[in-house]
Amino acid sequence: MNNICLTIAYAGTHYAGWQRQINGISVQQKVEEALAAVYGQPVPISGASRTDAGVHALGQRGVFAPPHHQLPVDKLPHILKHKLPDDIVISAAQYVPKDFNPRHARQKTYLYYMDNGPFPNPLCRHMAWHVHYPLDFEAMTQAAWHMCGTHDFAGFCATGGQAKTTVRTVFDVTVSTGEGAQQELVCIAVTGNAFLYNMVRIMAGTLYYVGLGKINAQDIPAIIAGKDRTKAGVTAPAHGLTLKCIEYELPLG
Amino acid sequence: MNNICLTIAYAGTHYAGWQRQINGISVQQKVEEALAAVYGQPVPISGASRTDAGVHALGQRGVFAPPHHQLPVDKLPHILKHKLPDDIVISAAQYVPKDFNPRHARQKTYLYYMDNGPFPNPLCRHMAWHVHYPLDFEAMTQAAWHMCGTHDFAGFCATGGQAKTTVRTVFDVTVSTGEGAQQELVCIAVTGNAFLYNMVRIMAGTLYYVGLGKINAQDIPAIIAGKDRTKAGVTAPAHGLTLKCIEYELPLG
Repeated sequence: MNNICLTIAYAGTHYAGWQRQINGISVQQKVEEALAAVYGQPVPISGASRTDAGVHALGQRGVFAPPHHQLPVDKLPHILKHKLPDDIVISAAQYVPKDFNPRHARQKTYLYYMDNGPFPNPLCRHMAWHVHYPLDFEAMTQAAWHMCGTHDFAGFCATGGQAKTTVRTVFDVTVSTGEGAQQELVCIAVTGNAFLYNMVRIMAGTLYYVGLGKINAQDIPAIIAGKDRTKAGVTAPAHGLTLKCIEYELPLG
Repeated sequence: MNNICLTIAYAGTHYAGWQRQINGISVQQKVEEALAAVYGQPVPISGASRTDAGVHALGQRGVFAPPHHQLPVDKLPHILKHKLPDDIVISAAQYVPKDFNPRHARQKTYLYYMDNGPFPNPLCRHMAWHVHYPLDFEAMTQAAWHMCGTHDFAGFCATGGQAKTTVRTVFDVTVSTGEGAQQELVCIAVTGNAFLYNMVRIMAGTLYYVGLGKINAQDIPAIIAGKDRTKAGVTAPAHGLTLKCIEYELPLG
């Protein structure tokens, strides 16, 4: 019998992160409670990415073994909607093989938002980091380019990570600014094969330092090669980060 | 002695609108409490626009007579920051003449956001109306064009308005869609000399009907001319509306 993979969007503001834990309500707990309510028995779910407290997601993935197949998989998002708070949304459900592991992604894309106006935009306060100093976007774009490729990102990793190797491949880093009313919203999009603990937030904090002129864009290769966390930028706060999507060898919607 | 005009941004989600009232906390009350805290005495403020409960603002204006001039006007936004919750932000403060009336605007711009994905994006849930049916943007753009100009908007007005005339001039209505991660965010920007009660929300709801094909774009002139509220579209919900900016003959920042 096949498993089911859910695509999950959430505003992380009111949660202690994805992963179930003793202290605080997690997104995983809420989704498992909703699944238990519709299936009538406990249904553990295995997530693709352990997002931290305050981090948001548009395309988190979670896999579970359905206790039965009486609920049509394409109706599951609608059925679960009534069992979930409005800050957690199931946007897709589809069958995957038993051996499909949501952690074995081909690539993940994260967005890091900065609100770069002189005063914080209250509409963005939960999903963008307010940075009131003017930023040099040209330098940030150049630095972003230097971050792409296969590197040992040991210097861009918080302690507490359990990775066997700190080598990761970053496929793309782009820095863009919004238009019109969202002109002050800066978006850093990072796509890679996998990420170390806090890696995207340290990349965002390093690009922030480049934007301020505290780090030169052309020094990024040496900072990566130095593998010294203290030479990179600050860890940008969690609430600016959104897990946008996760892709697999198996094509999922 | 001059008055002071504040530019005020707020997320309206947790407020009963701008205007002070008995039932519920208003933005005006919060700003007046902050002013009272910094000036040491009650300071009434007069707002430019009575935004409804749930409506947001980036550029609301409010004028007050300062009890004294010991607080430098350019420092007021920073001083007030510590007296306000994080969903209300004073982004500017400047002197205006005693006879400056914030309600006498040259033009106002409102934004109406629709979240047009199959499932709601939880990150937008407080500032965009979730509309899951696919919309015909070309027809909406054509209808928007027909709304521009000086018309009697009696059919685009909720009961309860106290306007002497229902003639208003709409300078511009644009329909745009976002890019990248915000592709599903539709923004309707409406600029006019003044607006009737709920007028922008009825315009947005009418454009929504056009997007669905329930109203033809070329019928908009007849619908306006008919002055019959029942012929226009639905009143779009308050939480999708943001008061973007208010401009005066007197140039304010």
